Amino acid sequence: MEHRRPVYWAGMKKGYDAHGTLPGSLEAAGGHPCRIRLIQYHQELVREQEVATVDELAGLQREELVTWIDLAGTPDQECLEALGRQFNLHPLALEDVVNPGQHSKIENYGKYLFIVLYLLDPLKAIRPVQVNIFLGADFVISICEEGEQAFHLLRKRIKEGQGLIRQQGSDFLAYCVCDAVVDHYFPILEQLGDQLTFLEKRTFAGASQEIVEEIHSLKMDLLVIGRLTMEAQEVLSEMMQGENSSLFGSSVAYYLRDVLDHTHQLSRSVDSYRQISDSTLNSHLSLKNHQMNEVIKVLTIITSIFIPLTFIVGVYGMNFQPEAGPLNMPEITWQYGYPFVWGVMLLVVFVMLIIFRRKGWL
Amino acid sequence: MEHRRPVYWAGMKKGYDAHGTLPGSLEAAGGHPCRIRLIQYHQELVREQEVATVDELAGLQREELVTWIDLAGTPDQECLEALGRQFNLHPLALEDVVNPGQHSKIENYGKYLFIVLYLLDPLKAIRPVQVNIFLGADFVISICEEGEQAFHLLRKRIKEGQGLIRQQGSDFLAYCVCDAVVDHYFPILEQLGDQLTFLEKRTFAGASQEIVEEIHSLKMDLLVIGRLTMEAQEVLSEMMQGENSSLFGSSVAYYLRDVLDHTHQLSRSVDSYRQISDSTLNSHLSLKNHQMNEVIKVLTIITSIFIPLTFIVGVYGMNFQPEAGPLNMPEITWQYGYPFVWGVMLLVVFVMLIIFRRKGWL
Amino acid sequence: MEHRRPVYWAGMKKGYDAHGTLPGSLEAAGGHPCRIRLIQYHQELVREQEVATVDELAGLQREELVTWIDLAGTPDQECLEALGRQFNLHPLALEDVVNPGQHSKIENYGKYLFIVLYLLDPLKAIRPVQVNIFLGADFVISICEEGEQAFHLLRKRIKEGQGLIRQQGSDFLAYCVCDAVVDHYFPILEQLGDQLTFLEKRTFAGASQEIVEEIHSLKMDLLVIGRLTMEAQEVLSEMMQGENSSLFGSSVAYYLRDVLDHTHQLSRSVDSYRQISDSTLNSHLSLKNHQMNEVIKVLTIITSIFIPLTFIVGVYGMNFQPEAGPLNMPEITWQYGYPFVWGVMLLVVFVMLIIFRRKGWL
Amino acid sequence: MEHRRPVYWAGMKKGYDAHGTLPGSLEAAGGHPCRIRLIQYHQELVREQEVATVDELAGLQREELVTWIDLAGTPDQECLEALGRQFNLHPLALEDVVNPGQHSKIENYGKYLFIVLYLLDPLKAIRPVQVNIFLGADFVISICEEGEQAFHLLRKRIKEGQGLIRQQGSDFLAYCVCDAVVDHYFPILEQLGDQLTFLEKRTFAGASQEIVEEIHSLKMDLLVIGRLTMEAQEVLSEMMQGENSSLFGSSVAYYLRDVLDHTHQLSRSVDSYRQISDSTLNSHLSLKNHQMNEVIKVLTIITSIFIPLTFIVGVYGMNFQPEAGPLNMPEITWQYGYPFVWGVMLLVVFVMLIIFRRKGWL
Amino acid sequence: MEHRRPVYWAGMKKGYDAHGTLPGSLEAAGGHPCRIRLIQYHQELVREQEVATVDELAGLQREELVTWIDLAGTPDQECLEALGRQFNLHPLALEDVVNPGQHSKIENYGKYLFIVLYLLDPLKAIRPVQVNIFLGADFVISICEEGEQAFHLLRKRIKEGQGLIRQQGSDFLAYCVCDAVVDHYFPILEQLGDQLTFLEKRTFAGASQEIVEEIHSLKMDLLVIGRLTMEAQEVLSEMMQGENSSLFGSSVAYYLRDVLDHTHQLSRSVDSYRQISDSTLNSHLSLKNHQMNEVIKVLTIITSIFIPLTFIVGVYGMNFQPEAGPLNMPEITWQYGYPFVWGVMLLVVFVMLIIFRRKGWL
Repeated sequence: MEHRRPVYWAGMKKGYDAHGTLPGSLEAAGGHPCRIRLIQYHQELVREQEVATVDELAGLQREELVTWIDLAGTPDQECLEALGRQFNLHPLALEDVVNPGQHSKIENYGKYLFIVLYLLDPLKAIRPVQVNIFLGADFVISICEEGEQAFHLLRKRIKEGQGLIRQQGSDFLAYCVCDAVVDHYFPILEQLGDQLTFLEKRTFAGASQEIVEEIHSLKMDLLVIGRLTMEAQEVLSEMMQGENSSLFGSSVAYYLRDVLDHTHQLSRSVDSYRQISDSTLNSHLSLKNHQMNEVIKVLTIITSIFIPLTFIVGVYGMNFQPEAGPLNMPEITWQYGYPFVWGVMLLVVFVMLIIFRRKGWL
Repeated sequence: MEHRRPVYWAGMKKGYDAHGTLPGSLEAAGGHPCRIRLIQYHQELVREQEVATVDELAGLQREELVTWIDLAGTPDQECLEALGRQFNLHPLALEDVVNPGQHSKIENYGKYLFIVLYLLDPLKAIRPVQVNIFLGADFVISICEEGEQAFHLLRKRIKEGQGLIRQQGSDFLAYCVCDAVVDHYFPILEQLGDQLTFLEKRTFAGASQEIVEEIHSLKMDLLVIGRLTMEAQEVLSEMMQGENSSLFGSSVAYYLRDVLDHTHQLSRSVDSYRQISDSTLNSHLSLKNHQMNEVIKVLTIITSIFIPLTFIVGVYGMNFQPEAGPLNMPEITWQYGYPFVWGVMLLVVFVMLIIFRRKGWL
Repeated sequence: MEHRRPVYWAGMKKGYDAHGTLPGSLEAAGGHPCRIRLIQYHQELVREQEVATVDELAGLQREELVTWIDLAGTPDQECLEALGRQFNLHPLALEDVVNPGQHSKIENYGKYLFIVLYLLDPLKAIRPVQVNIFLGADFVISICEEGEQAFHLLRKRIKEGQGLIRQQGSDFLAYCVCDAVVDHYFPILEQLGDQLTFLEKRTFAGASQEIVEEIHSLKMDLLVIGRLTMEAQEVLSEMMQGENSSLFGSSVAYYLRDVLDHTHQLSRSVDSYRQISDSTLNSHLSLKNHQMNEVIKVLTIITSIFIPLTFIVGVYGMNFQPEAGPLNMPEITWQYGYPFVWGVMLLVVFVMLIIFRRKGWL
Repeated sequence: MEHRRPVYWAGMKKGYDAHGTLPGSLEAAGGHPCRIRLIQYHQELVREQEVATVDELAGLQREELVTWIDLAGTPDQECLEALGRQFNLHPLALEDVVNPGQHSKIENYGKYLFIVLYLLDPLKAIRPVQVNIFLGADFVISICEEGEQAFHLLRKRIKEGQGLIRQQGSDFLAYCVCDAVVDHYFPILEQLGDQLTFLEKRTFAGASQEIVEEIHSLKMDLLVIGRLTMEAQEVLSEMMQGENSSLFGSSVAYYLRDVLDHTHQLSRSVDSYRQISDSTLNSHLSLKNHQMNEVIKVLTIITSIFIPLTFIVGVYGMNFQPEAGPLNMPEITWQYGYPFVWGVMLLVVFVMLIIFRRKGWL
Repeated sequence: MEHRRPVYWAGMKKGYDAHGTLPGSLEAAGGHPCRIRLIQYHQELVREQEVATVDELAGLQREELVTWIDLAGTPDQECLEALGRQFNLHPLALEDVVNPGQHSKIENYGKYLFIVLYLLDPLKAIRPVQVNIFLGADFVISICEEGEQAFHLLRKRIKEGQGLIRQQGSDFLAYCVCDAVVDHYFPILEQLGDQLTFLEKRTFAGASQEIVEEIHSLKMDLLVIGRLTMEAQEVLSEMMQGENSSLFGSSVAYYLRDVLDHTHQLSRSVDSYRQISDSTLNSHLSLKNHQMNEVIKVLTIITSIFIPLTFIVGVYGMNFQPEAGPLNMPEITWQYGYPFVWGVMLLVVFVMLIIFRRKGWL
């Protein structure tokens, strides 16, 4: 757990300007290597090329083609500034690209939409990776650290002309990117569901104390996913409303509704999982409590039986001298003293057992 | 419990596209055998026939008749595609038919409504089975794995002309299908209610630890039913609003309101049941705690009485030699030493009992 | 508790159609004897007569009079059908009369309102009894199993011309019926409040375990009343809105607002009571926990004092032979051996007591 | 606590009509002595006089003056009826004056507003006292059991012409009354805050069990205040909306907003206090649990050390006769038998201490 | 913790008028030294000067310049009154400046907006410090006890002409002040996040009881921050709506949305932190419970093994005289009596160990 949280929080930590920095400044840009792909297509044509710098993109945009600029990796400051100049992107939007760890959102900058969503890194489980999408009338720009892998199938679909994508415009492409992001959550949630079923089974099979930490960890993961899906849901429903919807053709609306539908499904599952994990934790605690009761019962039964017996044998271990008086432990000089004491002790045990059985302890 | 959950979750797991598959593709269609019934009627006429393939339906639709195409079972891909072609159904809707495990919903595709509801399989208790309903101006298509049994009475009612159904259009038929689905929940919820009453009784009669698992399991069932009824409620109230309502005649509106009313009743009962089961669980835990207190009290009383006695008899078991000095255990040479010790011990017991009674432990 | 719940739930159980019955059928009608009263009045005139069957009512309705048809008891099927024919009542509404156990509601059927509210049977405490009210332009029909007693004072008020009722129309009469139902809850809630105060007092006086069951039972009662008052509140606020309000004159609106106000008061009190009962339960549990701590403390103190002493006296009960060597228990041959051991033991007790006092256990 | 709750509840209990009484009847009016003050003013003039009966007020109202009729105490039925006649007040409003214990509210009766708020009696802490305010175009009527003290400063301010009040109309006067009521809550809440801080401190200093009752009592007080401030907030925000606002001049609106602001502040503080008291209670319980753990640890350590030792010394207290055979307790005839046993026992203690230290119990 | 709460509450305590004081009076003004800076700028010009009294500001305001009057410290009454006169500020707003401890808010006084936000004092952690902002068409007045340090960087940015600020009007300046306040929360929340991660780690490493107090304290801090960020969020979203938005140019709207976005991020993080701290506390309690179980298990095992053994050796410590009869403890005269007893005892231990292993206690 520990190796994951700090990353997420570290992400969040960077999500604000150092106190006093200029809003809209790009200083913090990381500068990890970043592949820039230019994909252009219409119904009958696909062109994909990789460029070294954003500047090479200038003049390549054509009206009759849908242009997808796919930045996979962490772009450096220069790159983003060039992109901003070329596509007229607002510095505040670019700042949000540089400082990941913000929440999902959609912002309408008039000529384009700026959409922020989150992937969960498949390798490191619950580490959110920001996906930035700019959707203009004839272009889509996507910037994502894990874009190489996340959009692999989408690129392939365009190249091979599968489905409707090549007949549609940039709005459909943006939908496809969002769809890829949302569908991404399902296998992760499924995995958490399996984990939960396993935790549940182990709980009722009498799990050890470690399960508490595992449930805590699962709940933390659900917290992250629940927040991300809820935000994605908000983003997608905002996408279909008001001024934002003007960028989407009516045929794409059905598809957007479908993704929105998926986010509903996700967030309801997260909600169910949360309730299941709470109920599982409570069941575990109750089970442990029950076990303690059993332990204490055993202690009580054994103590209650043997302590009186020990007392009785202690009595006859006293050294009173029978010679000093006839009332001084005459029992020890009786002929059947010893069997008599055993009789008394067996009677005590018997009575105790009956009492315990009546109380339902045995 | 275990045999149920995986089914539900498995259902849910399939409810998303494999990452990267084309939206609207029907690849996952199962292909279990599926009965296709064509039922056509107006006030004075009923025609029911079973067809082998969807293609045979072509040309059978007539304007003056209400057409119900009732697919009971899991239709294969071909069948769905044919249906899609013939009735102009949107691929996204058909995809939802193929991939069950989605949540209930209503979608307006202009010329028809697509409604998804859930039956709970009566045999396997809490296993949701998807019911897909397409409602057009003069046709209803219902697709349901358990349709054979679920709509048996409805088919009979049409054939025998009971009630209003034959005087009404396809909207009333769609209402009847929804009504059958919603009324389905009542006996199941009733059964859970009986279970709960039984759990409650056992709790206050001092149930064993297993009740915790049973309450957990009941809560999981309530979670599923609660979610389904809440969704059904949303679907039904959406049905009566905005553009959707145009497909329903004003006389059907009263009937829709009645079903909606039933869903309210259901979801309030689920809510009550949840609170009752929570309170029952808490009562159980408190009762167990109380029992532990009693056990510990018994332990304490017995220990507190016998440990001092054991100490006293231990004292007179010491081997100090009276001969070595007059202060060396003169008691054991007293004439009434032994009765004296018994007197002391009875006094100790008596004092202890008084103390415990004062503390309210006896 | 047990004698009450099943009734309520049984009521609920009947609240749905047997799966597959025709919507709007009246088959389940009970057929208990039912008094039918016809009360007609205007400012200067009152006429009350009891009729044997609904058919006798035909032709008795007059425009210038307010007509109240008051059915006290469970009407049989015939009776309801006759009523339906005569007043043109919708079969769905009549079905709701036959199948009690539904939730409170208001339904506008154009020419009349159908209102369902619940009385709580004063004899069997928390058993809901359905009150059905049909409000038309110049008539009110009330159907209630307990109507004999519930509306006794209202009938008297009409006959004696108390208050405004004779100057007003059928809308005011309907208000009076609702007012009688809502005011009915107050003494019951008051009784629960007294019960709660008593539970609270007993809790802090150190109640026994039974209080948990009593609080559970009280919470179940609050659940029922809370649900009923919340529903009554919804019904009353709907009554004052939209198309429903057209049946109410503006002078009646003030009075409706007053009843609505009473339901607010009720539901806030229920809410407070719930919080108080939760807090009381928690306090009880904490108190019991505290008592267990005390018991365990006593156990620990007595054990901690006497176990070391018992060990010491055990030491001198060993049978090592002083003759075998000078190191073999020379103490038992000392002149002051016995007093010396007592000294050691008193020291141990003293030290223990000091330690326990420092820990704050004494 | 006990001396307060009944009062509040008794108040609430009276807040409904005896079942079947006429709505709008004033029968329950108490009849405690009541001072009636007539205060009239405009910018340059103030007139205050006390009258014996409401009838004396007739004809004293003048258009150019603001008229405040201030009833301090519980008016009798006659008095209220006279007031109703003279100012044309609705019987339902007067009924609410007579039956205190209702919730706060605002009601628009066309020509005047009827406002109900609650003071908390400063002497008996959490006992709500109803304040009834009628606001007409040129008059304010206030009726309050504790009005003598509650509005003392307001009367003084009018007489001495402090602030804006003399330049403003009856709407500002009504605002001033509401402001006095709302500001009343602050010192009471402050006192609860102090109490809470004290409870918190004591909790972490290891408070005794009584703190549970005190926290329960505090939460009950917060429940009352929270309900009252929430209601006051609703009343004040309704005052500024819709038709009600027409009675308030635009310059008074700023002031109303300011009082509303105060109620926000109050209800947020109540909410914080509730969370703090919950967290404090949990901390207390956890602390007590921790203390029990410590006690049990001590018990276990002492028992675990001495029980084996007692066993060992018990062994050598057995009376096997060494003469009967060479294997019969030869140790007791050893020369160093006794020191040897002590050695064994010290070893046992040593091992036990090491084990406990490893487990972190010491 | 203790050194912080009183400050916050004390702040809150002063947030109401002493009961009966005139609304809008400034009597409580503190009078600590206060630096008054006048900063005026447009695109090409900056002028900063410090003045001794507010009166010196008269006549310095110029239309073509943005005027920022920055009061750092606690202004005295005179100063505020002068300010009120000069800028026509409403007495109610000035009263709120004097009595800090109110909640955040925005109030539209027609010609200017009055905004109240809160800084958290960086030195004393969670002590809220009120920031008062008046925004007029061409001026901004900021009054803040900690303004010296809080707006240091903003003043520098103006002076050095960094970013857009010099090209924009007073609305942008007000935005910058709000932005500085909101960004202020991030490092504090980050610190709490670190604390929480540390608490979490310690919990699962088996923390001591003190952690309960630390979590309680953290939750109290989250309560304060959560309330402040929620209020800031409300203030900022109100700023962008309705009549308030008219004071903000359209280019500033993007920036306001960005700050609003930051508050969303903050409040979601606070919410997550709350859930994490609750889950952590529960995990801690469960862990402690587990440890107690372990302790009790050790107690039970040791007791259960040694108590029967002690009984056995006690039996043979009895002093029955073998001479008195052949049944009187013949064992002690057996040749192998002693080894036989050891055999029995080892058997008991062995059986006990097997039982405990079967129960899973070892």
